[in-house]
Amino acid sequence: MSNIRERIIKLRKLMKEKGIDIYIVPSSDYHQSEYVGEHFKSREFISGFTGSAGTVVVTENEAGLWTDGRYFIQAEKQLEESPITLFKMGEENVPTFIEYIGKSLKDGQCLGFDGKVLSVKNVLDIKNGFGKKEIKLEDRYDLVNEIWSDRPALPKSNVFILDEKYCGESFESKIKRIREKMSNLSVDRHILTSLDDIAWLYNIRGRDIKNNPVSLSYTMISIQEIILYIDKNKITEEVEKYFIDKNIKIKDYFSIYEEVKNIPEKDKVLLDINKVNYLIYNSIPAGTEIIDKPNPSTLMKACKNDIELENLKNAHIKDGVAVTKFMYWLKKNIKSQEITEISAAEKLESFRREWEDYLEPSFNTISAYEANAAMMHYSANKDSNSKLAPRNLLLVDSGGQYIDGTTDITRTFVLGECGDEIKEHFTLVLKGMLSLSKIKFLYGVTGTNLDILARQPVWSRGIDYKCGTGHGVGFLLNVHEGPHSIRWQYNPQVLEAGMTVTNEPGVYIQGSHGIRLENELIVRNAEKTNFGQFMVFETMTYAPLDLDGVVSELLNEEEKEFLNDYHQMVFEKISPFLNEEEKNWLKTYTKKI
Amino acid sequence: MSNIRERIIKLRKLMKEKGIDIYIVPSSDYHQSEYVGEHFKSREFISGFTGSAGTVVVTENEAGLWTDGRYFIQAEKQLEESPITLFKMGEENVPTFIEYIGKSLKDGQCLGFDGKVLSVKNVLDIKNGFGKKEIKLEDRYDLVNEIWSDRPALPKSNVFILDEKYCGESFESKIKRIREKMSNLSVDRHILTSLDDIAWLYNIRGRDIKNNPVSLSYTMISIQEIILYIDKNKITEEVEKYFIDKNIKIKDYFSIYEEVKNIPEKDKVLLDINKVNYLIYNSIPAGTEIIDKPNPSTLMKACKNDIELENLKNAHIKDGVAVTKFMYWLKKNIKSQEITEISAAEKLESFRREWEDYLEPSFNTISAYEANAAMMHYSANKDSNSKLAPRNLLLVDSGGQYIDGTTDITRTFVLGECGDEIKEHFTLVLKGMLSLSKIKFLYGVTGTNLDILARQPVWSRGIDYKCGTGHGVGFLLNVHEGPHSIRWQYNPQVLEAGMTVTNEPGVYIQGSHGIRLENELIVRNAEKTNFGQFMVFETMTYAPLDLDGVVSELLNEEEKEFLNDYHQMVFEKISPFLNEEEKNWLKTYTKKI
Repeated sequence: MSNIRERIIKLRKLMKEKGIDIYIVPSSDYHQSEYVGEHFKSREFISGFTGSAGTVVVTENEAGLWTDGRYFIQAEKQLEESPITLFKMGEENVPTFIEYIGKSLKDGQCLGFDGKVLSVKNVLDIKNGFGKKEIKLEDRYDLVNEIWSDRPALPKSNVFILDEKYCGESFESKIKRIREKMSNLSVDRHILTSLDDIAWLYNIRGRDIKNNPVSLSYTMISIQEIILYIDKNKITEEVEKYFIDKNIKIKDYFSIYEEVKNIPEKDKVLLDINKVNYLIYNSIPAGTEIIDKPNPSTLMKACKNDIELENLKNAHIKDGVAVTKFMYWLKKNIKSQEITEISAAEKLESFRREWEDYLEPSFNTISAYEANAAMMHYSANKDSNSKLAPRNLLLVDSGGQYIDGTTDITRTFVLGECGDEIKEHFTLVLKGMLSLSKIKFLYGVTGTNLDILARQPVWSRGIDYKCGTGHGVGFLLNVHEGPHSIRWQYNPQVLEAGMTVTNEPGVYIQGSHGIRLENELIVRNAEKTNFGQFMVFETMTYAPLDLDGVVSELLNEEEKEFLNDYHQMVFEKISPFLNEEEKNWLKTYTKKI
Repeated sequence: MSNIRERIIKLRKLMKEKGIDIYIVPSSDYHQSEYVGEHFKSREFISGFTGSAGTVVVTENEAGLWTDGRYFIQAEKQLEESPITLFKMGEENVPTFIEYIGKSLKDGQCLGFDGKVLSVKNVLDIKNGFGKKEIKLEDRYDLVNEIWSDRPALPKSNVFILDEKYCGESFESKIKRIREKMSNLSVDRHILTSLDDIAWLYNIRGRDIKNNPVSLSYTMISIQEIILYIDKNKITEEVEKYFIDKNIKIKDYFSIYEEVKNIPEKDKVLLDINKVNYLIYNSIPAGTEIIDKPNPSTLMKACKNDIELENLKNAHIKDGVAVTKFMYWLKKNIKSQEITEISAAEKLESFRREWEDYLEPSFNTISAYEANAAMMHYSANKDSNSKLAPRNLLLVDSGGQYIDGTTDITRTFVLGECGDEIKEHFTLVLKGMLSLSKIKFLYGVTGTNLDILARQPVWSRGIDYKCGTGHGVGFLLNVHEGPHSIRWQYNPQVLEAGMTVTNEPGVYIQGSHGIRLENELIVRNAEKTNFGQFMVFETMTYAPLDLDGVVSELLNEEEKEFLNDYHQMVFEKISPFLNEEEKNWLKTYTKKI
């Protein structure tokens, strides 16, 4: 911990040298990615706090860490003996870091940060907090870099091309659609810096971020040219040929910061201020008109084409086979073997690795036993790693990156005896999941309209789960993908045919148990009638929902029918890949109730 | 029709005299009321079109009427032989009247309208359509008035005081709450011109608009004074004493237009640009800061207090008795008497009039037989008035103004044989209504989250109803009251305890049949758990849902239980007011299924 004290002292010295009064260290990379690589863990380095979300603010006399409710306990522990004060976000009378900065800075002072790790929107929000004070912004210095001697290098994984037989649409077709959008918006240029959008557009993937097959890069598109800014060492000869063939210019990763300075002032530039970093924005000539809109690629990417969907369904069969084999193994061995949360997760991973075209997990597996599962973002480590016993519930939320798609699945397994309340809760979660899965709705509906379907059974008992019901999932890309979602707080994005979305209601009872069941759904056109275009969901996750947890009297006839049909489909898709013993077992666990 | 031609000619002559190139005649009063009195039917006078919604725009050479899909057929008929062109709103390639004006006006020309009948928002939207053209606005002249020789006078009904035993909160308490809101918003003055807000604030009612017990008036509130602008002839001695007692200054109705000119420029003025008319706004000194926010009274009024709710439930018992007696009478006499849509509505009204404290209908009763009911806003007249036969469905949507509250109820009655499809549709509508009625939800939810509950059974069959599911209802006030609603298009207003809202799904099959079932609900706090404050609906409409239309196999056990409980409550509340014969009959129509 004394390390941290020294680092803060060094940082203050550097601040003084540069004339900076307050310095911000957020938890981001240059692309506002949800997950960041080791190189970008500056906030962790400066504070010692390892949670995924948090912001450090350092003044001459004080240093603060802002994080949310998921991390209060962890942060308190990790900040012990450090000179950093914990600010608990969302608690009464706790200022936000923006309020804190706004209050602390005096007229004429200077706020510093690395302009590459804050979005334009972040900085505009911070500026709003200044009121009428004149504050200087210094966005050029990554001060943490100067004291982080053993900082991990930027990742250097090779880029690979995703064949059209997987992605289903050529780069030429995608860029044409984007340029049409640009033309509709009367813009001359488009700056695109979100890594999943870039990977989708060029049909390339990388391995620069664990679990997220993207490659650090920026893009600028105009009518005349298309430039990809990327470390050239990541480009093999084959890939280089591919780029040359498609008239895509390759320039050095960092050269975009100089190049945007040369954008003609008459150009209208399209960019998403939530995604583009402040230093890029601030480097664009001041007279240039900026059109702030979501990246056109984001919605295009979310609406999977037919080839992607067919591939995804294949990936889900492989994934379902792994989860089914794991479930069989778990139920068979729980009484006879020592199994822990971590060893269970490893076992599941080993089943996934049996598939040749499996790359890696799509996120860190959550394997949580009994009360641990009540912590929604629990991650087992050596200290917490529970031994499983033949009773109560194990929640496993996991997913895979396959060459033909990304998966995300949660099953909660009954390991033996469990109380009536637990079974009731299990069945309520199942009811909610079925109710959302089987809805038919009119085109125009958003996830905000549908969330109640998944939530009403638990709400009927005075229980809520404090997260959304569903999120989009990428195609061999990020496991969390917008712009749509299923949540009761407003999201204006209409559900479009081809979108994929998770359906994952839950019950989380602190100190006791956690239950989550998660299938992935495809949004499909159903019939068009006099009243309009109707839509349905097709379920594409294939693994048994543990019948040992179901109180069948709590399901109505429609729900039973839907569940039985689902289990029949699971058997048909999965059983061809099982041995006889597993197949017989699956027959029982997909039986009609 | 030649009348209309002459009127348009006269209008053009006046326009020329005043230097006006285009003149707008909307369908509104000075208060943006949903329903307007006879004095305000200028658009009807100038066009001959009698529908409730429409806007006339007159240029030197052309005259157009804009109206929506409900009125295309009627408008076509009523504009025959007139020089006015029908513009069908919402149809492809039909410009809005704003686009039309924007395109027609040339740089330097003048747009005229009576500034008292367009809201500030209306005019701002129109101005947006001008692009970069310089257009003069002339808001001072009510030109229709100059050619409308037999124009009905402004209404002169007396104001009456609504006793605190009905409204449950004193004027003093209400004005205190409004001033607190003003203080929170740092405003010095509040201009309030919506008639229901004014009636609520002062605990007064009037009879200036049919079915809407309000009185034409404006209000200005500051810390120093409270001024009510109203025709003094409407104020009896008793009411005058009431106002003096409460330090409310009474000034002439029209004097507000002069008085706002004297608002000190340093004052911040709170007003809702959707409600306040443009002439008032335009008369405020130019340097004054305007804070555009919803009127604080609107949300306060929507959240009924306990006394209002108790009174409302009493009003609903009276209303339920009237509807139940009507249902009995209808079923008994349908084979033996000649009954028409109009005579049925009159019969129902006669049952309501049996109650001493019944004032008038809360809106024009919709009494629609067979295919007529498929037209959502059908209103029977001498020509259309259908004779009822002992078969198929009669839809009756009606409500009453009682001294203890406003009601709104729809029942669809089975008059004899009807096909299986009709019964299926009836049951789907019932399922939707029950599903919404019995939901428990977390505080924070809006009607946008809940709409799907009422709609899913009809959506499951590829059917939709093209309107919201529910609206707020006033207390001895307007039958449509915001700010909340239940609809799937976004409305950000959270459902608060004490709000009342209708629950009225439907099926409308053109040329065949229409079904709507409507109960009113009260939003109530349920239990508070670790997960937050939960809310439920209490149903306060008490009348049988016609079991002759119900296919019980389509209801699940929960729905049956809820329906049976509801019918038992109806019997308990209503039967004490029935004779023996009616009571026995009601027993059958509220039996368990």
